[in-house]
Amino acid sequence: MISRRAFLHGAAVATLGATANLRAQPRARVDGRRLRERLETLSGFGRPAGGTFADGVSRVAYSDADIAGRDYVMTQMRGAGLQPRIDAAGNIFARRDGSASTLPPILFGSHIDSVPNGGNFDGDLGSLSALGALETLEGAGIRTRHPLEMVIWAHEEGFAFGRGIACSRIAAGEITAKDLSETWNGMTRAEAIRKIGGNPERIHDAVRGKGSHHCYLELHIEQGGTLEKAKIPVGVVEGIVAIDKYDATVTGFANHAGTTPIAERHDALLAASHLTVAVRDAVTRTPGRQVGTVGHIEVTPNSPNVIPGLVRLSVELRDLSQSKLVAMMEDIRARAKQIEASTGTTITFSQTMHAAPAVATGDVQLAIERAARALGLDATRLPSGAGHDAQNMAMLGPMGMIFVPSVGGVSHSPNELTAWQDCTNGADLLLGALLEMDKV
Amino acid sequence: MISRRAFLHGAAVATLGATANLRAQPRARVDGRRLRERLETLSGFGRPAGGTFADGVSRVAYSDADIAGRDYVMTQMRGAGLQPRIDAAGNIFARRDGSASTLPPILFGSHIDSVPNGGNFDGDLGSLSALGALETLEGAGIRTRHPLEMVIWAHEEGFAFGRGIACSRIAAGEITAKDLSETWNGMTRAEAIRKIGGNPERIHDAVRGKGSHHCYLELHIEQGGTLEKAKIPVGVVEGIVAIDKYDATVTGFANHAGTTPIAERHDALLAASHLTVAVRDAVTRTPGRQVGTVGHIEVTPNSPNVIPGLVRLSVELRDLSQSKLVAMMEDIRARAKQIEASTGTTITFSQTMHAAPAVATGDVQLAIERAARALGLDATRLPSGAGHDAQNMAMLGPMGMIFVPSVGGVSHSPNELTAWQDCTNGADLLLGALLEMDKV
Repeated sequence: MISRRAFLHGAAVATLGATANLRAQPRARVDGRRLRERLETLSGFGRPAGGTFADGVSRVAYSDADIAGRDYVMTQMRGAGLQPRIDAAGNIFARRDGSASTLPPILFGSHIDSVPNGGNFDGDLGSLSALGALETLEGAGIRTRHPLEMVIWAHEEGFAFGRGIACSRIAAGEITAKDLSETWNGMTRAEAIRKIGGNPERIHDAVRGKGSHHCYLELHIEQGGTLEKAKIPVGVVEGIVAIDKYDATVTGFANHAGTTPIAERHDALLAASHLTVAVRDAVTRTPGRQVGTVGHIEVTPNSPNVIPGLVRLSVELRDLSQSKLVAMMEDIRARAKQIEASTGTTITFSQTMHAAPAVATGDVQLAIERAARALGLDATRLPSGAGHDAQNMAMLGPMGMIFVPSVGGVSHSPNELTAWQDCTNGADLLLGALLEMDKV
Repeated sequence: MISRRAFLHGAAVATLGATANLRAQPRARVDGRRLRERLETLSGFGRPAGGTFADGVSRVAYSDADIAGRDYVMTQMRGAGLQPRIDAAGNIFARRDGSASTLPPILFGSHIDSVPNGGNFDGDLGSLSALGALETLEGAGIRTRHPLEMVIWAHEEGFAFGRGIACSRIAAGEITAKDLSETWNGMTRAEAIRKIGGNPERIHDAVRGKGSHHCYLELHIEQGGTLEKAKIPVGVVEGIVAIDKYDATVTGFANHAGTTPIAERHDALLAASHLTVAVRDAVTRTPGRQVGTVGHIEVTPNSPNVIPGLVRLSVELRDLSQSKLVAMMEDIRARAKQIEASTGTTITFSQTMHAAPAVATGDVQLAIERAARALGLDATRLPSGAGHDAQNMAMLGPMGMIFVPSVGGVSHSPNELTAWQDCTNGADLLLGALLEMDKV
């Protein structure tokens, strides 16, 4: 809570303290119409030729469409009186001073790159709402205690260079050799970063220290169907789930599909099918929100008249609780032993990825909930099954995320959709939450 | 049974009737050592560079290796006093006169083309044993009543132009537009046929009429493990199984693997996995030698972090009884309905191929069994799960096949192996069977 004294000692521009103002008057609201116009305009960068808003967008990181989209957003930022700067990793920042110049900033934003054939809301909503929130405060003449810093993270989607959430990871100090040397689409990452205005030679300048911000907030579409199904307009994210990924290799014996009696088969695809079913069984054996997916499968020789001799498949498990992931994998391994015996195959697993859970800070969750109550918005807590830049910012300080409903739970698709009212609700809640956090 | 009168009225060259000779003396036997030498030499055409016999062979139809192999075999045929001729489809024939010039020939042989990375016995054994049988008769001065005609069928394996058993099909009169116009490996089938000495302009000259031969006999390796497992040296083929092939299309809904709760998934790969298990269940529900295989699967988008939205898979069913195939498919369709309901997907089937069963002629099976008894070889009846040129010849007249054991049931692999003694047994039985059929 800001004291009256602190308020009076605020910077000269602030004629009205945020808290006092918000108690006395209706809360400042983000301009929903302008937010919609910007989302529609941004969706034009990377839109399929001759397409409409409904055809979605392919604005892969480092593409020309990405650069055009970034230029558009920076122009909008300048129009709102901000001065965007690009850090060495290619992330776009813009800062608005607070009344207490010694306080660390409240950081908030999202990304605008997309998957190929993606939607118009994933990342874009949080990015343009961050701009809308700053603009609203400016328009209402509200000065926060903490400086406010919006960010458009570069390269969030896991397509360019085969992995995502990349440039916020650099900001979190997790820089690996791959971050500059890897090649994709005819360019190295260093070249890609340079292409969007970063400076790979000074990549370490992009690192933000621990405690360098008061907290990080991100508004995002849910990308799942929980909120829509529950008819709740906003979600308070409990955290970003841990992910364990494995490659399973099923070795059987390729043989003639006509001449090999059933009893003598070592059918690797049959075993892989049992394993795929076992993954689902392990996930649903206990109640909870954990998920598990076999999304990728590779069969050798993959010919209709040859019994498959070798199958590789991916097993991906996600939950907020790391121990639940371990228990599910134990279950899957035990079942694999039985499948080996019944199908005459061998099954091995190698872990290809482990992402620790990023738990949202309790105080930030409470602040979001207070802001939702003040806006009259019902809210529920839920985990994020998807990764977000917020998980990297959680390494540096308090973190919280807001979700708004995705129609049908669809994402990474041109059919990705969030109702305009839900977009506006989200932007308002982002603004409210940062003002709540400003008091903490 | 040939009458004494008929024998005495035989052609002038025949100094000894086959039946009289064979009753009085030990049966004429094929030279096993020469058979082995020829199999080893033939395996050198298409052998991997620097490899040995154990490295198998890639002698795909119409390749340079195939042409070299054919030249070798024709040279061997000439050395045995035969005059090979190539028909318009590229099949190699050689005829030895019988004593009764009005009788139709007994036709016998196999093929020498291979799959890529195939073995040294598939087709080669039957081809070189046919030569060995003719050579033995010549050496022993045995003249049959019927003319004898050996054949090396071209393009048996289903690799060139995406389908096999091609040139014996042309001989059976089943010529389609594709047989000349299809393109593969930079050449049309017409060009391919010309490359091996055929004459695509006169392709219909290759057609053999119904009844144009007395019977067709083919010795082949089993390509399965039944004989080896039962420790029986020769098999009498009951027929070549019917094959029904289907493409199954499983339509779910692609969505984010992290954000989509389990209850809201429409996972096409999970459904396809249940279907793959259902195919096996349908096949094993009733006793018998029927087989069923899911050998090919195609997943969209096939990414570890996306729930598969679309899966295409092959379902292939084989049995001698067409009605059993129908019953299995009914079982699979019924199970698919349940899978659709439990996984929220839709499953459709389209039949891509139907091959009718080719039943071996009862009299020919009995003749092979008589010959086996005379040689002191245990024999058992079994179906052929693989397709063979014999199935096309079954359209024209009586047909029979002899199988010898495949070590481990392995085929279409460099590890394909048949013991030399089993090879010799097979060649002797082929000779014995054609002499038995000569009496009928």
